[in-house]
Amino acid sequence: MALEAEFSLIARHFRPLAGPGALDLRDDAALLTPPAGRQLVLTADAMVAGVHFLPADPPDRIGRKLLRANLSDLAAKGAVPLNYLMTVSAPRDTPDAWFAGFAAGLAQDQKTYGVTLLGGDTTATPGPISLSLTLIGHVAPGTAVHRFGATAGDGIWVTGTIGDGALGLAVALGRLADPSGHLLGRYQLPQPRTGLELAGIASAGMDVSDGLVQDLGHLCRESRLAADIAIENVPLSGAARAAGPDWLTTCLTGGDDYELLLAVPPGRSDALRAAAARAGMDVTRIGHFHSGSPEVMVRQASGEPLALTRGGWSHF
Amino acid sequence: MALEAEFSLIARHFRPLAGPGALDLRDDAALLTPPAGRQLVLTADAMVAGVHFLPADPPDRIGRKLLRANLSDLAAKGAVPLNYLMTVSAPRDTPDAWFAGFAAGLAQDQKTYGVTLLGGDTTATPGPISLSLTLIGHVAPGTAVHRFGATAGDGIWVTGTIGDGALGLAVALGRLADPSGHLLGRYQLPQPRTGLELAGIASAGMDVSDGLVQDLGHLCRESRLAADIAIENVPLSGAARAAGPDWLTTCLTGGDDYELLLAVPPGRSDALRAAAARAGMDVTRIGHFHSGSPEVMVRQASGEPLALTRGGWSHF
Repeated sequence: MALEAEFSLIARHFRPLAGPGALDLRDDAALLTPPAGRQLVLTADAMVAGVHFLPADPPDRIGRKLLRANLSDLAAKGAVPLNYLMTVSAPRDTPDAWFAGFAAGLAQDQKTYGVTLLGGDTTATPGPISLSLTLIGHVAPGTAVHRFGATAGDGIWVTGTIGDGALGLAVALGRLADPSGHLLGRYQLPQPRTGLELAGIASAGMDVSDGLVQDLGHLCRESRLAADIAIENVPLSGAARAAGPDWLTTCLTGGDDYELLLAVPPGRSDALRAAAARAGMDVTRIGHFHSGSPEVMVRQASGEPLALTRGGWSHF
Repeated sequence: MALEAEFSLIARHFRPLAGPGALDLRDDAALLTPPAGRQLVLTADAMVAGVHFLPADPPDRIGRKLLRANLSDLAAKGAVPLNYLMTVSAPRDTPDAWFAGFAAGLAQDQKTYGVTLLGGDTTATPGPISLSLTLIGHVAPGTAVHRFGATAGDGIWVTGTIGDGALGLAVALGRLADPSGHLLGRYQLPQPRTGLELAGIASAGMDVSDGLVQDLGHLCRESRLAADIAIENVPLSGAARAAGPDWLTTCLTGGDDYELLLAVPPGRSDALRAAAARAGMDVTRIGHFHSGSPEVMVRQASGEPLALTRGGWSHF
């Protein structure tokens, strides 16, 4: 877009989001004085219209989803989110109301999660709206939780309920009924599990964004362990249970959960439960890690393994 | 793209770029221990095929331009670059050789500028290749140079020569001859002025990326001063001088210079010259700031103001 249009757009929609160090978005770079004695944790995600969201999705929800997907990554590290840089590439004919809605969504979630905009860039594109967000948070040095680090015998825990996001997508596509609206809501707006204290509790962890089985496979590979989970222990929401057993595989392998998947030594189970209670979250033990080749075994109530072969995940 | 394809792509092309704290790009977030006693300086740019580069441009040059445009922003703050996060959204049919070339260009410039990849994201897009890069550097606390802060009487200085980038674009479009290849080279690959010490020397500054007059206008507005520059003092390369007087306006108002534009108090001129000599750069005083409404006056050798009205910049 023309430079003047770009400046005006930034001033109207993005400047109100700017926090300390952003220099009112009037400069070419931002300042960040790192919190004393803390280590920074950084994550970046890109989101593209037609891939990560539908072009017709409400713009406030797109902004919130962009921010929340990154907040979920930091939550899985046990990090406290601080601020973010963002790039927005939009077609020249993008209505001003789109930017207003997008920024309003970000403003709302900035309050909820205590983060502010630090800087970024706005450009034109001949293609679909393309967004990127780099989120910065902090931890006590050396305490960030990683995908590696789990030990044989550690329990496998998840926050909240699994599968609602994937079922919500089915609802959005008209393939599943959702009388309560719970599933669609979970798909449309992730609830990142920020605020759950993990340092000294979880030996490894990540957020579930590509499906429970797929992401548990990542923990297995990076920690060089096998995982064994019992299907009846996987926490499902009432709405997911109401969908019936035909949707169970979708719950286990779908994406967009944004719950945390944690490895927790048996001696730290109580500490996890206490931390979850403080954060107002539910946590559930769904299985355990053991030595072996990095594979995920999902056991049915009968004890028999469930065969899961979907798309690119045939190695499970 | 399919998840497996994405992981494989990251492993082959981007993992070799990963530095300390990047956790081999195997995790959802990266770690950064801020250099002790330093303030961080952060900048983010987006680049889109068809807008900021041509789809057929060599991919190594696209990677280097993306990194160098951000390095130039940090150079203008007087910051030492440290590392970066990057997002790459590419069509599913993007050849593997494109990613290999793109990463090779980044690898080359990582060595030149002493930076490493910290993290990022790779996604598919139904549109043009869309890139974003967040670059992190550091300064002694409180010493970053801003667009504001110039004082009446400060000299206006530039590094290197002005206009080569804009003339190089004319060369690329077949509108101008370039026997030496100097102009095209300057357009194709920015030379960020990292390493020029600015703390305690420049009272304000920025890099020239949107054209000298346009960007000097930004310094005027943010510092609430008027600027007066003499056209015969603006340093031009031999190739730019050879293009002749018809191209002078292009030199003054074109973009892609990636030189530094600095406000320097008269008593610090010698310190600037010494710092430039240490960094192996030329610096030239082209005018001065004075009190008045924030406007840029470009004086011809006759003393008469030059009328510059181009595109959105008619307010000059």
